[in-house]
Amino acid sequence: MNDEAGIRKHIEEANNKALELMRLSRPILVDIKRAKDILPKMKKNSIFHAGPPIDWNRMCGPMRGAIVGTMIFEGFATSWNDALELIRKGGIDFSSNHDHDAVGPMAGVISPSLPILVVKDRSNGKTCYARFVENRVQFGLFDQESVKVLRYWSEKLSPPLGKAIRKSKGIDLKPMMARALHMGDELHNRPAAGTLLFASTILPHLLKVCSPNEVLEVTKYLSENDIFFLCMSMAACKAITKAAHGIQFSTIVTVMARNGTTFGIKVSGLGDDWFTGEANMIKGLYFPGYSHEDANPDIGDSAITETAGIGAFALAGSPAILALIGGSAEDAIKYTYEMRKITNSLNDTFTLPIINFQGTATGIDIRKVMRTGITPVIDTAIAHRHEGGGYIGAGLVRAPLDPFKNALHAYGRKYKLV
Amino acid sequence: MNDEAGIRKHIEEANNKALELMRLSRPILVDIKRAKDILPKMKKNSIFHAGPPIDWNRMCGPMRGAIVGTMIFEGFATSWNDALELIRKGGIDFSSNHDHDAVGPMAGVISPSLPILVVKDRSNGKTCYARFVENRVQFGLFDQESVKVLRYWSEKLSPPLGKAIRKSKGIDLKPMMARALHMGDELHNRPAAGTLLFASTILPHLLKVCSPNEVLEVTKYLSENDIFFLCMSMAACKAITKAAHGIQFSTIVTVMARNGTTFGIKVSGLGDDWFTGEANMIKGLYFPGYSHEDANPDIGDSAITETAGIGAFALAGSPAILALIGGSAEDAIKYTYEMRKITNSLNDTFTLPIINFQGTATGIDIRKVMRTGITPVIDTAIAHRHEGGGYIGAGLVRAPLDPFKNALHAYGRKYKLV
Repeated sequence: MNDEAGIRKHIEEANNKALELMRLSRPILVDIKRAKDILPKMKKNSIFHAGPPIDWNRMCGPMRGAIVGTMIFEGFATSWNDALELIRKGGIDFSSNHDHDAVGPMAGVISPSLPILVVKDRSNGKTCYARFVENRVQFGLFDQESVKVLRYWSEKLSPPLGKAIRKSKGIDLKPMMARALHMGDELHNRPAAGTLLFASTILPHLLKVCSPNEVLEVTKYLSENDIFFLCMSMAACKAITKAAHGIQFSTIVTVMARNGTTFGIKVSGLGDDWFTGEANMIKGLYFPGYSHEDANPDIGDSAITETAGIGAFALAGSPAILALIGGSAEDAIKYTYEMRKITNSLNDTFTLPIINFQGTATGIDIRKVMRTGITPVIDTAIAHRHEGGGYIGAGLVRAPLDPFKNALHAYGRKYKLV
Repeated sequence: MNDEAGIRKHIEEANNKALELMRLSRPILVDIKRAKDILPKMKKNSIFHAGPPIDWNRMCGPMRGAIVGTMIFEGFATSWNDALELIRKGGIDFSSNHDHDAVGPMAGVISPSLPILVVKDRSNGKTCYARFVENRVQFGLFDQESVKVLRYWSEKLSPPLGKAIRKSKGIDLKPMMARALHMGDELHNRPAAGTLLFASTILPHLLKVCSPNEVLEVTKYLSENDIFFLCMSMAACKAITKAAHGIQFSTIVTVMARNGTTFGIKVSGLGDDWFTGEANMIKGLYFPGYSHEDANPDIGDSAITETAGIGAFALAGSPAILALIGGSAEDAIKYTYEMRKITNSLNDTFTLPIINFQGTATGIDIRKVMRTGITPVIDTAIAHRHEGGGYIGAGLVRAPLDPFKNALHAYGRKYKLV
């Protein structure tokens, strides 16, 4: 192929198709199940994690801490040293969440017994999965107190919530997300309205199938954990971007994910390959006693929200989040407009009242990123760089340029453009 | 007194005191009771209404319709003609809500058997009251279908909700309102986040004292009526402004209310007197089939929200409301800043993330209104001008200048400044 205008038309058509599939995507929350009962390739000794694939030796502190915490939860080990021994013997089979259509916040570790959300895309029948959100193990803590959070989720919360979700015949997430965006959420670091809307929607089903104690337990948890809806937002965004994946010639990014060491992307027209670069440091606000020195580089699958056009791409609509991540309302609006330079559409579902109900910039195009040198902006929490260090702040980070550069080179090779 | 600087200092001190009392005010929702059981001066044949006092002959269509609908609910009459006969015979004792520390949305009609919210100000022990919100009778409808709404509230909703509120030992409204303002509410036309937050807060108490059916009934109602929190917002704002009332020399407005014919204000330093002018027409958006021609002038006690520094004074933080009332996000921000020209402080509790967490303009000063010619902006629903016409749109309206002019003249006379 050397007809440049012809190629360009071909790419535009492919990207339009990918964007149309994102628009049509209709993620429905259908269940909560133990990972081993629903993830086809999860083995007894599997541990899935956030970001692109990575060996134990290259993993960052919070990822290692989260893995050990989860191994203790599973009964694979009883201590840090115990866990290390098993890992060094090759006893654990590590794998990237995204390679199994799953996502997890921060370290994002998913193990066989951990309950995960199951989201089915009504537009195409595909299923995606998400780990729930908490603020301990996923930030690298692995003490007993932290592991207890996974047990609490597994034993106390998932059973009644799962019953209610099944009773509901499925919770339609996209309209709920659209509504939350009109209520000051950006659905990544701030999903507070989403959590309230979900709580309100699930309540009649909880009341139908659960005991009064179970209802109290679940609703108390939801009212005290306003970050909860993030896992639903991530699951929905995974389904939305998955819908656009696998379109020949498309240059649209369908995955952005970080393991705390590297930042990886996948591209619609480039199959299952990861394109990676070094993860950046986050600019943000720290909890008292912590500083930039303590911070791990960017980590987590939650950048799937930006990949789907929300998160920092919707920052203009969520100025309240600035109290957590820093910056001014003017900056927030600036970022929202800036992302139009590297995307191919304005979202038809996710709109922002503050920019007069225009849609968020959606569909990151690797060509536009390389042409402008502008990389996606992401808002995120900050983990301590040491295992056991925990949650220390939140802020904004840019994706590195390398993954996009590597993807564009691979694109040139695959489609014989070079 | 003729020392102008001295007088000015006196006034500033009085206004600072009034504003300090607004800041200290801490309205707690403590109960729901039938009006006759809690309003000290409500008689068997009393009907209280929104806005300044007005005779039946001068009342607008929606006010008349709402009164007749409420009389049918009470069993005072069975039809329009029946009700008219009783009214013409002097059988009904009309009175203004505000003259009883009560507020009601739109026509705002309160009758003896109607359940009302009871809010106690923890800072001063004073009690205020608010009629609940619905979208039929308060807009002047009086058919059986509409009257049924009052019966439903009275028989089905108030008893369990009242039990839960009493069980809670009181719901602290100010923090809930502050949080809702960070979630895109302006707490007048858009109290959607407030309703979700209230539902989440009251739920554990509902679960403790109500039957499963009652819990379902109440929570279903709350999830389907996202305007519900307006009555709590109004009750709280009444308590906040009441706290500032009665300070000698203060020029701060403590009441703005409309009966659909006249617009009335009260001023902290001017006792119980009303100062009135003709109510303005609203600029806004109409439901299909309706236009400006069908509209009644501005009506309702809900402008108590603007009096307390929210509603249209917080419009910048609630751009989603523009889908209902019209206008651009830029206008919304402009109004929020403009109101600083006629007020004496920025609110310490009610802050807006979009203007970098600055407080809303609070404490309207009749001197500043007269000096600038700028009158308060109010967002509001629009009622059809005929009884039985109902809810036809929503928009923005300006307070007329006359009430402020009349108040300033009265101030000059009272304090011997002229």
